[in-house]
Amino acid sequence: MFEQLALIGCGLMGGSFALALKKAGLVKRVVGYSKSPSTTERARALGVIDVEAPSALLAVSGADIVLIAVPVAATESTFRAIKHLVTSQMLIMDVGSTKRDVIEAGRRALRDHFGSFVPAHPIAGKEVSGVENADADLYTGRQIILTPTERTLTTQLQKAVAVWTALGCQVQQMSPEQHDASFAAVSHLPHMLAFALMNSITGQSQGADYLSLAGPGFRDFTRIAASDPKVWRDILLANREELQTQVRVFRDSLQAFEQLIAQGDNQALETLIGQASQARAAWTMTSKPTH
Amino acid sequence: MFEQLALIGCGLMGGSFALALKKAGLVKRVVGYSKSPSTTERARALGVIDVEAPSALLAVSGADIVLIAVPVAATESTFRAIKHLVTSQMLIMDVGSTKRDVIEAGRRALRDHFGSFVPAHPIAGKEVSGVENADADLYTGRQIILTPTERTLTTQLQKAVAVWTALGCQVQQMSPEQHDASFAAVSHLPHMLAFALMNSITGQSQGADYLSLAGPGFRDFTRIAASDPKVWRDILLANREELQTQVRVFRDSLQAFEQLIAQGDNQALETLIGQASQARAAWTMTSKPTH
Repeated sequence: MFEQLALIGCGLMGGSFALALKKAGLVKRVVGYSKSPSTTERARALGVIDVEAPSALLAVSGADIVLIAVPVAATESTFRAIKHLVTSQMLIMDVGSTKRDVIEAGRRALRDHFGSFVPAHPIAGKEVSGVENADADLYTGRQIILTPTERTLTTQLQKAVAVWTALGCQVQQMSPEQHDASFAAVSHLPHMLAFALMNSITGQSQGADYLSLAGPGFRDFTRIAASDPKVWRDILLANREELQTQVRVFRDSLQAFEQLIAQGDNQALETLIGQASQARAAWTMTSKPTH
Repeated sequence: MFEQLALIGCGLMGGSFALALKKAGLVKRVVGYSKSPSTTERARALGVIDVEAPSALLAVSGADIVLIAVPVAATESTFRAIKHLVTSQMLIMDVGSTKRDVIEAGRRALRDHFGSFVPAHPIAGKEVSGVENADADLYTGRQIILTPTERTLTTQLQKAVAVWTALGCQVQQMSPEQHDASFAAVSHLPHMLAFALMNSITGQSQGADYLSLAGPGFRDFTRIAASDPKVWRDILLANREELQTQVRVFRDSLQAFEQLIAQGDNQALETLIGQASQARAAWTMTSKPTH
């Protein structure tokens, strides 16, 4: 399907995309670039990329598909670095967890070629990062959210839908605003809560003792706290307005629990927990691994 | 090892203990009682118990080991119900997630026989409840915390250590105060946060849309929100002082994130996330399934 993938950012997300394209036989050659030369070298040694490029611009040279898989705050500088070799035939995508900021970055930096960019967010991840953990099946069965703008070219959008579908993903389109509000609630806030809980425990003098007693519930609840600090710093800042809204709603919800506990109101507390418990028991993930 | 287990409360925790004792060949007969006769009947139909008792008192008649596996707030009334048939040879244990309240209940209700009670908290559970989900391996490889008091009989304590060890558990002893403070931090607060997050999302007009986009991170973070409302109502109320302390520390920790996000302070935010990420990556669960 594609001649050459330019992979900019050879980490977990980018590396997994390259491996998935290769496994599906959808690309002939992967040219990779990472900010750190040692990362690019490891990516080649691991067979994730075929050729190391000395710059983002040179990686894009000759590519018909470009994946930008860098922390979201680095997206604009990446667009600026590659813009002179971007063509209107290229499909350019990202994998960022926020979309409004990335779209504004593309609008500013890509200008006339902004229509080649199809903003994408695969709902997939691992608590470990780095190209060593890249996995050809990371995206299999997962949801992919595309947030095209009024300027996105139809051909590019169709290609984007086709490539993710071919990787076994469920593709969904929505506005960048709807995307960012949704993920503030179901992803960005939970990450922030998990980070805050870890720090609140380790900041206490008996924190290490407490942690030694934690069980499977804690393990699952805090799994996302091990996420990559640079990636999450960028996400929390990029989506700060929606996130701040969600934190306010959450604080009120937490306050309701605190009040009933302080009042010792069993019945109302049971009702409140019952709501949460029923909602969670009724929820199932839309995207599921097919394997 | 034991002639007769009196199982009071035939739910997930109690049922799993009965199945585990049977599987290990440690008990000849299990006599069970649940508040709801249909639960007791299902427990017998499923082979979790051998005999249905019409009351907690009659279940205890002739038992040499008693397990109280009821929501913690029902512990005192259970002690009162059985106290006339409690002997100083019996080993009485509970499985409650809080220990100070259960110990005070035992002190008040069991009086002269309080020494037969060995307060126990197995660090095990599932997001589903009920005898249908009872599992002979629920406790295998898990930590068990025993919180004996100054009046606990040595013989009973030794028996308690022996039986949990025989089930493949790692037994640890600590004071009830240390127990309750620890679990407020690593279990009770996380549950409260997970409940509050679910309610904060479902309370929004677009909540259902948000939930349809949630992925694996959300799934793991909120798994404990599906826990049993009665059980958790009791735990949050029984341990309210320690829990309130932990909520205060947590709110401060969350506030630190909010401030840096509002200020757009990338560097400090990355450091704060880095602390959480490192701490979580370095953590491993002390108790692990052996299978």
